[in-house]
Amino acid sequence: MTIDQIEAAAARLSGKARKTPLLSSPFLDEIAGRRVLVKAECLQHTGSFKFRGGWSALSALAPEARARGVIAYSSGNHAQGVALAARMLDAPAVILMPSDAPAPKIANTRALGAEVVTYDRATGDRDAIGAELAEARGLTLVRPFDDPQVIAGQASCGLEIAAQAADEGIAAAEVLVPCGGGGLTSGVALALEARAPGFRVRPVEPEGFDDVARSLTSGRIETNTRRAGSLCDAIQTPAPGALTFPVMARLCGPGIAVTEDEALRAMAAAFERLKIVLEPGGAVALAAALYHPEAVAGEAVIAIGTGGNVSTETFRMALDRHGEAA
Amino acid sequence: MTIDQIEAAAARLSGKARKTPLLSSPFLDEIAGRRVLVKAECLQHTGSFKFRGGWSALSALAPEARARGVIAYSSGNHAQGVALAARMLDAPAVILMPSDAPAPKIANTRALGAEVVTYDRATGDRDAIGAELAEARGLTLVRPFDDPQVIAGQASCGLEIAAQAADEGIAAAEVLVPCGGGGLTSGVALALEARAPGFRVRPVEPEGFDDVARSLTSGRIETNTRRAGSLCDAIQTPAPGALTFPVMARLCGPGIAVTEDEALRAMAAAFERLKIVLEPGGAVALAAALYHPEAVAGEAVIAIGTGGNVSTETFRMALDRHGEAA
Repeated sequence: MTIDQIEAAAARLSGKARKTPLLSSPFLDEIAGRRVLVKAECLQHTGSFKFRGGWSALSALAPEARARGVIAYSSGNHAQGVALAARMLDAPAVILMPSDAPAPKIANTRALGAEVVTYDRATGDRDAIGAELAEARGLTLVRPFDDPQVIAGQASCGLEIAAQAADEGIAAAEVLVPCGGGGLTSGVALALEARAPGFRVRPVEPEGFDDVARSLTSGRIETNTRRAGSLCDAIQTPAPGALTFPVMARLCGPGIAVTEDEALRAMAAAFERLKIVLEPGGAVALAAALYHPEAVAGEAVIAIGTGGNVSTETFRMALDRHGEAA
Repeated sequence: MTIDQIEAAAARLSGKARKTPLLSSPFLDEIAGRRVLVKAECLQHTGSFKFRGGWSALSALAPEARARGVIAYSSGNHAQGVALAARMLDAPAVILMPSDAPAPKIANTRALGAEVVTYDRATGDRDAIGAELAEARGLTLVRPFDDPQVIAGQASCGLEIAAQAADEGIAAAEVLVPCGGGGLTSGVALALEARAPGFRVRPVEPEGFDDVARSLTSGRIETNTRRAGSLCDAIQTPAPGALTFPVMARLCGPGIAVTEDEALRAMAAAFERLKIVLEPGGAVALAAALYHPEAVAGEAVIAIGTGGNVSTETFRMALDRHGEAA
């Protein structure tokens, strides 16, 4: 992956993806003891950064492959990103989703015109099911993170961070990234390596699902024992990817783990101080910035708020526990 | 008020105010039956557009007046906007607030370094109290809407809308603006008159507090009977201003009134589809766009989401009533 491939993806995304704002609040700075800037990817189309990778991958396909259609498997955000990109490009899309994915994510994916096929996350092998469907219908598989064009698309978020941080006068900072399989984390790290070498990417995960942090420590791909049940459903991926891990091993770390309750508290803080909606998995980086300041270095920290596709039930839980006390 | 004064205010605001995004969702387009674009001023510093007017007014003061300090009276959002601008400009700020303003708004204003003085909204005359304080301490009064520099600052939001709508290929649209005293409404109308003459501004108010709509119909300043008690506390102003009304009478209307419940429903829709937090008064324009489509003309409508300073209690009410059904 070169910066040229990333710039090419960013060019394809220009005018299609939103350039999301870098938000801040003096109240959050006070909690963290340093400047905190939040890249609000929850404001991206479909409510998460995943639209970037979906559009990048689909817009790079040959016309005949695009006409046959694509298939994606996802806990929800990648699904919606691919579904919208497919609709905008007139490509059929089949989305393979775990049956325990939040109901609004499944409903939204269907409403965006995709055909949704569900499977059991605990017992099913989504790769095998996806490969079989792709073979049967001639669909192109768009992997959620281990795909060069997907990584290049997510990397466009890193290019924006480099430019926006420069506008804020920030030449060096740690960039905290909610991390599932590592597509966004590795993409942002590659973009920043080229465009903002004073920045360092730190993956953030929920406790109990810290496969990337452990992999970075051991130097080889580690997996999670638990495969489901995290409130941070968007990032409970079993292990880092074969393409993403070497990038992260070279450029990122060490990882940070936060509790589910800290993620909920960060959601309440983002509600109160930034006026944005984050889902638990999208709030873990902000949680690390606010509630683990000792784990972070430097005068400023940038946290990506990766997504906001949360049920009202979970959002109410965050406000009930932490509203007006964040 | 000329476009030159507006451009001068925008120049002073450059790099200080956020250029807020124009958001959209295919799900909202479907509800409204036309394209819906939301100018997310809840993402402005202090959670509302009011920072624009506050900064514009304070940055236009002579240094000696700024050093003596300013006074403002406000139900909350103007207070926070002036307080932050004063802190950034090292000016003392006294804020006169109704004692029934939402507690977080009072607390935030104090936390931003201002001295808060409270009064009873039903029985007190805030203009008289403010004038007396200003006289006694040599403070400059920064009115919430009937001040040319405040109007020019709010108008910068209109300049952004003109540019952002052009980027979206929109040459004509109605622009729905939550309206209290008319500072934002008249400012945006003046900016659009000069920069996007195909646009028409429509003030939106809560039922029972539709003084501007009635004033536009009768051609003279009408007042509200009720002075307090609206969930839309940010815009329950008694009457349009002496400066703002003639501008609105020339450029805006007719007004639209929505129910409190429609405002709550629009808050739930903004949560679910745009991932932003709106307060009831900040959601009335989106409510008009979504739930009064027959009152609006054209293929696209732009609604300003003016603020997001809402208590968790009121936000939960919106989600309880309308979550996942908006």
